[in-house]
Amino acid sequence: MIRYPNGKSYQPIQPIGTKKRISGESSYSNRGMTLEADLNETNQYYLVNGIAVIHKKPTPVQIVNVDYPKRSAAVIKEAYFKQSSTTDYNGVYRGRYIDFEAKETKSTTSFPLKNFHEHQIEHMKQVEKQGGICFVIISAFGSVYYLPASDLFFFWERQKLNGRKSISKDELMEAGHLMTLGYSPRIDYIKVVETLHFSDESEYQ
Amino acid sequence: MIRYPNGKSYQPIQPIGTKKRISGESSYSNRGMTLEADLNETNQYYLVNGIAVIHKKPTPVQIVNVDYPKRSAAVIKEAYFKQSSTTDYNGVYRGRYIDFEAKETKSTTSFPLKNFHEHQIEHMKQVEKQGGICFVIISAFGSVYYLPASDLFFFWERQKLNGRKSISKDELMEAGHLMTLGYSPRIDYIKVVETLHFSDESEYQ
Repeated sequence: MIRYPNGKSYQPIQPIGTKKRISGESSYSNRGMTLEADLNETNQYYLVNGIAVIHKKPTPVQIVNVDYPKRSAAVIKEAYFKQSSTTDYNGVYRGRYIDFEAKETKSTTSFPLKNFHEHQIEHMKQVEKQGGICFVIISAFGSVYYLPASDLFFFWERQKLNGRKSISKDELMEAGHLMTLGYSPRIDYIKVVETLHFSDESEYQ
Repeated sequence: MIRYPNGKSYQPIQPIGTKKRISGESSYSNRGMTLEADLNETNQYYLVNGIAVIHKKPTPVQIVNVDYPKRSAAVIKEAYFKQSSTTDYNGVYRGRYIDFEAKETKSTTSFPLKNFHEHQIEHMKQVEKQGGICFVIISAFGSVYYLPASDLFFFWERQKLNGRKSISKDELMEAGHLMTLGYSPRIDYIKVVETLHFSDESEYQ
């Protein structure tokens, strides 16, 4: 039996199509589910089973006007969405800092880099420099990929050099780690983190 | 010259009262500054100098109604403050996960435990279990203390046992690590993290 380092047994993943999955439908748009919902379920699974503590950060909001009615809760009457200067998810696995962003595309040929903005790339570079484990989870072409931040940086810099504004399907399949979707956890990205950063044959530190 | 592990030189702290500090005033309420502002400045200092990447999480808000006017930004028309289930600050230092909450009290005799709620304590326990570095920064009695989460747990559990709903001044001075306030960084909590978790004489892992 495969066990996580904390001694918890690893629950084997089930193929798409069992239980709540509708057979034959694999893209998020078709399934009526979202990448975010699947990641929240995954993080909840990690938390409950003591595998990792990873949370999605709240949506950043600029609050302009708040009403404080008597005998009831404060009501925010005017606020605006702010662009985040960091990534959406972070937390801890085996003491190490984990930081990632999740994105999906409906394009069938490539993943557009406009899904990220300069501030986020800058943040990811700072995290890598500080020894954190940083990556992006990309849902594209009917699959979900784990792309290490260092690879994203390569494509980001190339955009500046030759103007190519996307990662082609072939490139993503080559640089990314394909994740098999399961029932619970749905997107077992910690398995990839474990392989890349903690196993004996780890390519990374 | 003292250097951080990344080779950056340590900027010696300056006593309270120099530059923008008004001599003789040491509590946040008197100075017209907030603990949060000082921590934001400190985190900015760490970021710019490549010492650590720590951010305050956005305030969690439950969005109920959003207006999408033509040709201008979406306006949130109704939203409510939500209780956070985690702590306010997290990030990475030398690869390790850092997680903390900051609180201040105007009480002159003790620090009330009602500043925390069960969900936050639960989160801090999960972080500790996962090998993260977790603590609280408490501004009280004219000083700022770094209290390891494990000590906070002790006082939290005692509350359940004998009903004492606060940490006395003496107890905080005994269990907490007094931080000298500086000009930049203002509250050098990473110095305490370094001593407790990374130096040869580290009491912790």
